[in-house]
Amino acid sequence: MSTTHVTTRIATLVKNMEEHGFAGMAVNAGPSLTYLTGLHFHLMERPVVFVFTPASPVTIILPELERAKLTGLPFPASVYPYGEDPGGWENIFKEALEAIGLSGAKIGVEPRQLRLLEYKLLRGACQDVQFTDGSSLVAGPRSIKDDDELLLMRQAVMIAEDALEETLLKVKIGVSEKEIASELFLQLIGHGSETSLPFSPIVAAGPNGANPHAKPSGRKLQEGDLLVIDWGASFGGYASDLTRTFGVGKLDAESEKIHHLVQRANEAGRLAGKPGVTCDFVDSTTRNVIEQGGYGQHFTHRTGHGIGMECHEEPYIRNENNQQLQAGMTYTIEPGIYLPGKNGVRIEDDVVVTLTGAESLSTMSRKIRYVGA
Amino acid sequence: MSTTHVTTRIATLVKNMEEHGFAGMAVNAGPSLTYLTGLHFHLMERPVVFVFTPASPVTIILPELERAKLTGLPFPASVYPYGEDPGGWENIFKEALEAIGLSGAKIGVEPRQLRLLEYKLLRGACQDVQFTDGSSLVAGPRSIKDDDELLLMRQAVMIAEDALEETLLKVKIGVSEKEIASELFLQLIGHGSETSLPFSPIVAAGPNGANPHAKPSGRKLQEGDLLVIDWGASFGGYASDLTRTFGVGKLDAESEKIHHLVQRANEAGRLAGKPGVTCDFVDSTTRNVIEQGGYGQHFTHRTGHGIGMECHEEPYIRNENNQQLQAGMTYTIEPGIYLPGKNGVRIEDDVVVTLTGAESLSTMSRKIRYVGA
Repeated sequence: MSTTHVTTRIATLVKNMEEHGFAGMAVNAGPSLTYLTGLHFHLMERPVVFVFTPASPVTIILPELERAKLTGLPFPASVYPYGEDPGGWENIFKEALEAIGLSGAKIGVEPRQLRLLEYKLLRGACQDVQFTDGSSLVAGPRSIKDDDELLLMRQAVMIAEDALEETLLKVKIGVSEKEIASELFLQLIGHGSETSLPFSPIVAAGPNGANPHAKPSGRKLQEGDLLVIDWGASFGGYASDLTRTFGVGKLDAESEKIHHLVQRANEAGRLAGKPGVTCDFVDSTTRNVIEQGGYGQHFTHRTGHGIGMECHEEPYIRNENNQQLQAGMTYTIEPGIYLPGKNGVRIEDDVVVTLTGAESLSTMSRKIRYVGA
Repeated sequence: MSTTHVTTRIATLVKNMEEHGFAGMAVNAGPSLTYLTGLHFHLMERPVVFVFTPASPVTIILPELERAKLTGLPFPASVYPYGEDPGGWENIFKEALEAIGLSGAKIGVEPRQLRLLEYKLLRGACQDVQFTDGSSLVAGPRSIKDDDELLLMRQAVMIAEDALEETLLKVKIGVSEKEIASELFLQLIGHGSETSLPFSPIVAAGPNGANPHAKPSGRKLQEGDLLVIDWGASFGGYASDLTRTFGVGKLDAESEKIHHLVQRANEAGRLAGKPGVTCDFVDSTTRNVIEQGGYGQHFTHRTGHGIGMECHEEPYIRNENNQQLQAGMTYTIEPGIYLPGKNGVRIEDDVVVTLTGAESLSTMSRKIRYVGA
């Protein structure tokens, strides 16, 4: 990440804080901290907290051992390192936060990322501060991807598609879900994915495909199975998340029918996005295709989720979410039909909102493809 | 995990709650939840919370979509599933917690795992409940490994050792840290590690080795480097975490000297553990060797950390930790010497406390080994 990115992102955060009446934003180890600073910290037993304010340098509380990561920071900072004894945490948080002087102010935090561990330390250090959900101050800007970010996401998609093509060469009747998942994993790494995948691939055939969150099992592919593969790659800190459903040998008529229905729903969903339309609209446009096909009660989840540094982030493509899409937002379109005890279909793409519509970052064919003997 | 494990573990938790005056324990997605229930939930945008109490069935709040995971639960449960709209979370938490009737009680939580997201929902659902750090109610039992757990940990160690031996065949002058890390990663998976490693391997040579948390770089191995490799495997949900330091070609006298000193410290540390001695004692026994060798100020971190389902967990082997070791506890012994701008050495083993002492789960030689042209 360039120095320009970091300084622009912090400036945007400060502008958002001022517009919404926040005197500061406390961010702990996680994707938002990486987004804002370019630094990587694991969420570990030791707290790492950065406090951003309009006036002061960035206040950084971290283990002494991690201090080397701050070399050459592109923004002014006041650093409060601490040693091995957790008994010292309370005092260092007090010292750091008293130096900023936030008495009576409203400070933003991310409830999905901040643990009680850090919250109690912050709360103990400034008892008259009002800690408030400030997620949107960072999630808003994070949801709009710039060209550099889109390049990384396109690469994460390409790695995933190439890895699956290579894996499919070994997919046939008699091979187990677990064997396919292992091969896919190695192909993802071999094609350049970071080793920490956004999620463990789902490979689920026949009745296992009826569980949207199935884990690969020892079950072997059988003639007539629908085979769901849900997989993704990580590249440059960004995720891809795709699903394709294959036919094993000859399918019965209903399996072909539901695959075709989901394919049409996926297409409708991919085309529905543009600046100004709501997430609810994209969800209902996708869902309507399946409802009109008579399988509405078997599409049991939301249509999609935002994707970027996290595999699940804003915007969530679901019923009743009136958030409006903006150019640069990226999200999945992943309709499915699940017939318990029988089979399942899901077809998932990653799309980006353009100035006039939406473009799919993934291009692998969604038509039914057959694998066999 | 067997049904017996789960029911025994929940019974132990209940006993601990009663002994320490807790009316319940709220556990969100994470390793403790897996330990107690055998179920795997990711920490995602949707909250998953289990509330354990002495009297009632286990109260489970989770997304409808995850409900299939509860099939065949080996304990009685009251399940509160919720749909796609986060607007419904508050009510479902209220409904679930009012049904338990915890008014005025003390409920345990894990501050290192519980996010503000779940905490606010719990707090909103029962405002007169006192949520208190109850980490030790689970961390205590978790820190004592039974024979089945030790078997998995021994396997995680064996996979790691075998993978490194295979990797070393390709380690020579001119190969980069990143190339070694990639090969090691593939060998770990190839030898049977789960694909989600406990951590990304550290491969750091020459001056890079002076940073205990270095990331593998493009720097190529050079004659005279000390090469630090810190790596581990995951097996059956348990981690291993080892470090060895190698000589590249011919080393200078000081490099050999500090390697030997760390090797002696590692040995002292491995032998220091037994039931009843404190973590502080193990730390100081290890540290004294390096201090007496004149390099005390270059051993900049604690001696070790507990290891099990998490790569870092209780007990922490550090100065001023008066926790007493018990048979079945497992932790790392990882002394190091770091000479900024020059090089570094670390030698790390995973040990288990026995009835009379401590046994290293890892057996790969700690003596200096040379890799070359």
